[in-house]
Amino acid sequence: MNMTSSIAHQLIDNHLISGTLQPEAEIALRIDQTLTQDATGTLVMLELESMNLERARTEVSVQYVDHNLLQEDHKNPDDHLFLESAARRFGLWFSRPGNGVSHPLHQERFGRPGATLLGSDSHTCAAGAIGMLAMGAGGLEVAMAIAGEPFYVKMPKVWNVRLEGKLPDWVSAKDVILEMLRRHGVKGGVGWILEYSGDGLSGLSTMDRHVIANMGAELGATASVFPSDDVTRQFLKSQGREHDWQAFSAGPNAQYDREEVIELNKLEPLMALPTSPGNVVPVREVAGQPIYQAYIGSSANPGYRDFAIIAEMVKGRRVADGVSLDINPTSRQILQDLARDGHLLTLLKAGARLHQAGCNGCIGMGQAPATGRISLRTVPRNFPGRSGTREDAVHLCSPETAAASALAGKIVDPRDTEQPYPQIREPRSPIVDTQPFSAPPSSARGCQPPLIKGPNVVSLPESQPLADRLDLKVLLTVGDNVSTDEIMPAGARVLPFRSNVPRIADFVYADVDSTYVERAKKYDGGHAIIGGANYGQGSSREHAAIAPQYLGLRSVIATSFARIHWQNLINFGILPLTIENPSEQISQGDQLLIEHPAQQIRSGREVIIANTTRSINIVARHTMSLRQQEVLVAGGLIPWMRARNEFE
Amino acid sequence: MNMTSSIAHQLIDNHLISGTLQPEAEIALRIDQTLTQDATGTLVMLELESMNLERARTEVSVQYVDHNLLQEDHKNPDDHLFLESAARRFGLWFSRPGNGVSHPLHQERFGRPGATLLGSDSHTCAAGAIGMLAMGAGGLEVAMAIAGEPFYVKMPKVWNVRLEGKLPDWVSAKDVILEMLRRHGVKGGVGWILEYSGDGLSGLSTMDRHVIANMGAELGATASVFPSDDVTRQFLKSQGREHDWQAFSAGPNAQYDREEVIELNKLEPLMALPTSPGNVVPVREVAGQPIYQAYIGSSANPGYRDFAIIAEMVKGRRVADGVSLDINPTSRQILQDLARDGHLLTLLKAGARLHQAGCNGCIGMGQAPATGRISLRTVPRNFPGRSGTREDAVHLCSPETAAASALAGKIVDPRDTEQPYPQIREPRSPIVDTQPFSAPPSSARGCQPPLIKGPNVVSLPESQPLADRLDLKVLLTVGDNVSTDEIMPAGARVLPFRSNVPRIADFVYADVDSTYVERAKKYDGGHAIIGGANYGQGSSREHAAIAPQYLGLRSVIATSFARIHWQNLINFGILPLTIENPSEQISQGDQLLIEHPAQQIRSGREVIIANTTRSINIVARHTMSLRQQEVLVAGGLIPWMRARNEFE
Repeated sequence: MNMTSSIAHQLIDNHLISGTLQPEAEIALRIDQTLTQDATGTLVMLELESMNLERARTEVSVQYVDHNLLQEDHKNPDDHLFLESAARRFGLWFSRPGNGVSHPLHQERFGRPGATLLGSDSHTCAAGAIGMLAMGAGGLEVAMAIAGEPFYVKMPKVWNVRLEGKLPDWVSAKDVILEMLRRHGVKGGVGWILEYSGDGLSGLSTMDRHVIANMGAELGATASVFPSDDVTRQFLKSQGREHDWQAFSAGPNAQYDREEVIELNKLEPLMALPTSPGNVVPVREVAGQPIYQAYIGSSANPGYRDFAIIAEMVKGRRVADGVSLDINPTSRQILQDLARDGHLLTLLKAGARLHQAGCNGCIGMGQAPATGRISLRTVPRNFPGRSGTREDAVHLCSPETAAASALAGKIVDPRDTEQPYPQIREPRSPIVDTQPFSAPPSSARGCQPPLIKGPNVVSLPESQPLADRLDLKVLLTVGDNVSTDEIMPAGARVLPFRSNVPRIADFVYADVDSTYVERAKKYDGGHAIIGGANYGQGSSREHAAIAPQYLGLRSVIATSFARIHWQNLINFGILPLTIENPSEQISQGDQLLIEHPAQQIRSGREVIIANTTRSINIVARHTMSLRQQEVLVAGGLIPWMRARNEFE
Repeated sequence: MNMTSSIAHQLIDNHLISGTLQPEAEIALRIDQTLTQDATGTLVMLELESMNLERARTEVSVQYVDHNLLQEDHKNPDDHLFLESAARRFGLWFSRPGNGVSHPLHQERFGRPGATLLGSDSHTCAAGAIGMLAMGAGGLEVAMAIAGEPFYVKMPKVWNVRLEGKLPDWVSAKDVILEMLRRHGVKGGVGWILEYSGDGLSGLSTMDRHVIANMGAELGATASVFPSDDVTRQFLKSQGREHDWQAFSAGPNAQYDREEVIELNKLEPLMALPTSPGNVVPVREVAGQPIYQAYIGSSANPGYRDFAIIAEMVKGRRVADGVSLDINPTSRQILQDLARDGHLLTLLKAGARLHQAGCNGCIGMGQAPATGRISLRTVPRNFPGRSGTREDAVHLCSPETAAASALAGKIVDPRDTEQPYPQIREPRSPIVDTQPFSAPPSSARGCQPPLIKGPNVVSLPESQPLADRLDLKVLLTVGDNVSTDEIMPAGARVLPFRSNVPRIADFVYADVDSTYVERAKKYDGGHAIIGGANYGQGSSREHAAIAPQYLGLRSVIATSFARIHWQNLINFGILPLTIENPSEQISQGDQLLIEHPAQQIRSGREVIIANTTRSINIVARHTMSLRQQEVLVAGGLIPWMRARNEFE
């Protein structure tokens, strides 16, 4: 170990394929493990199908089902069957619906100190709790990692957060991360890895650390890392996996780009008010307001302790009239421990509503609160409407604060209750439940199990290599700051078709120009869209590229692009070009011609567009790297990858 | 006791307000208890509001929340708050969400032998299990009962079903009612009360009897009744309510209109195949087919035993790969017993998915199966698409058959398993959980708690007394056999607005003539609709009358009417008239005039309609009873009732 290396640098160093540890520089990392959940996983599996992947090339890849568990019609259960078949086909582990939430399950069953984990879920970072470098990413990036490709990321800076002392009674891990959010806000972590250290760690179980690492996402951090210490060893031992443990800690003279101390003994119960996790105040400042709901669960308070302490607090008492105490077990395994130890019966006797193990209301799948009523939740996010209720009032807090308030019927600082503080630790002998995980079948080249596709699961459309001559009609011109929400709307009307590109394509630009789709379908040749500045801002959704590509979009010509959408366009074989004042040189309906585009792209930064309608030539620019140029010429990342798979 | 009286006749005799026990004659019954659930209850409560009811006049009225528990947005939780406030306002008991399914809860907490129960749910008949006369009815009929009005019903005939002997191992109550369905089909019980007797009863717990009485609805029976015997007494004693027990049995020489014997020892495990509860075959005939799901729960197998026996069967084993074993506890109380006795832990260890207590998937609220895959369910109905999946394959069976099949991954006759038959009885000392029921506040006239209405809960529109001159434009003409599904569509698009008549009115006749609503709203005066034969067939939904009434419909003139919709039209102040060949005498757009309609109705069976467009007079007929005439003249049942409430 380098005496001056942080844990973050050691983890990166050990997985570095290219690049240097210079902040802001692009680095390529080898990915050991991947995690996909069902909401994003169906598209990842369709991408693997389209790549002709024979078998996952990671150490461990796990497909979880935890998001879409309500099953109001055939679409969710058909997706589950498809994912199970895809796990068999591509050699992934499969965690069946009912097992619970991916992040704590992954920590229990698969995570190992020192490894890298990439997941198609923004809270993948939670695995930093046991000394992993764990990051959330887009679906296609995870598909590439499963296929053995490196993950490209800007080298983050490293920020040491030293936890000193011991948490007071009634203050727990959620209050630690809320304190970070109080200090730094929801953008405070952007470009950073948060590395936790200090004597305060000894009092934090791995599930407590999970709470803190999980909500690093709310600070915008690239990742959060904890050392792998004896607490980690005990945890893995209790899960029957002591062999996966190895010590991992920062060098004694570790260098950091930033340092900070949290004195744990000075913390108090905190609460994030609507509608941002960064809107943090002491609970006492808002005490007394009547509540409608106390919602317990999610990957942001997943541990046995987080439920058991509530049971101890409500023991022999009843939740207040009119308060819904909603218990959302993180996993079937934890639910079993709670049942065995009597905590479940205690919760039920107090009047709790017990829900199935899964993400549930944390992602708006049920348990929406009544209009305007206060819901206290141990979940990571309280963005407006995320609960399912447009005019919601979700407050984020610790289990202790939620339970004290459920008993009182109003917001209460748990220190103001009369009770002694219940002392609870994660169980030394948890019921270890490995059977509901289906192991990947052993590899047998050329004998792949079939994919099981319900009527709403449709293979990705084929895409073609870049043509030698792009003859494009301009079907749409839009202004500045068009978001991916405008390009590809989300919402209950559209989301159910996320595994069905031909169908979801019917909604492209639906709220901007409802005639676009019909015109694109009628027009046989390829077409172009003209944008303004910051084209494709907002959500990173890949459908905003795949779906227009399916409709025949071959090039977007704009003043400038939002970074992620620009990358997505290249990934799906759509040529992004920039020109000044596009609206002055190109109008809707114009016919554009780009001769030998591959040759032009490879030979410099300029591409000549002939506007044959106006009989003018326009000089456009591109900023693609050499690798991106090859991806675009191949027709996108999937055909590029497929070519490599077929070559091997 | 009359020596020749059946239980059914005794119950009717004790509650008879008018009429005679002559089959087919209309009788009026005093209603002791009512039951409303949330899906139908919001409208009932709006009707009570509109009637200006001061306070419920029944012995016990209970508002349950068990149907719409998913809470995907504000509408369900807002409804729950509204119902809770309405229970306070009108003096009803309130059972909060999470308590469980109305029917078994009502049996546990409120039902008493010898009483009548009317409920706005078709499975209300389940309470016949403890010697009650219990019937399902429309919402407005239940509202009238809450307001102290009698319930009008055609006197049914009484059919004695003698259960002899003892059920063999692996055969249970569900197989008894499936045998009835196998013998008589889904219309076999129409016009009948099924009265169970025989030495076989001693082996059936009250929850077993509940299974049989509950699915009497699937036979179309008016009600099912069981004697109140020592089994009943033990049950009520275990619930802390021995004081509510009284013996109730048929006279030794009881006379029946029909008699039948089921030899219990000859029964075998049965299964209703898709898509009708009447499609019954022995399980062995369909054994071996792969299954996707085993769904346990609902009011059609609600007892502790029905879950405990599954726990005993799966103990130490695992459900087959790819099978979802979905456990839907009937109530929080039963869930507590299962947790206390270790059965819950056993089920979880076997890989079960545990859901909240409530109706859930039985009414299509979650847990839909994958397309075309077999789902075995202990629920009462397998109508096409009721599971939420259009192309579903729901099979109805006993818990024993479902569990044996879940372990095997395919349909299995439980007699073909190697296990000894687990012996389970309802717990002698159940955890009796009365606290989550809010008792009605004590009466204080003139000091009524307010109704709490979310944005989607809207008071019923006012209706006016019959005008002295009906000047009606014909806005729509339709053909024969128009159903209430065409008049007022249901489905996910429309149902969320069931507590909001002005909003749901936007969908009236949407799929027949999408311009009707707009034209009705533009036309200020009242309007008429011209129908053919059997107008308003199908579902009994009241919205098919309320919503057009809100839009200005004042009269429907048709060749003939379906009975329930005809009644609903009168109940909401819409004049139903019949003429021969309406299309020959009236066209869309014609202007009709009825002078002094009240006077014409009261003075005979004929009503003169002047078609002023064609300058002809048409003689129409009505068949309203004297009481119905007064209801219509008052503007419908609600204003008629309000006048009585204000008079008192």
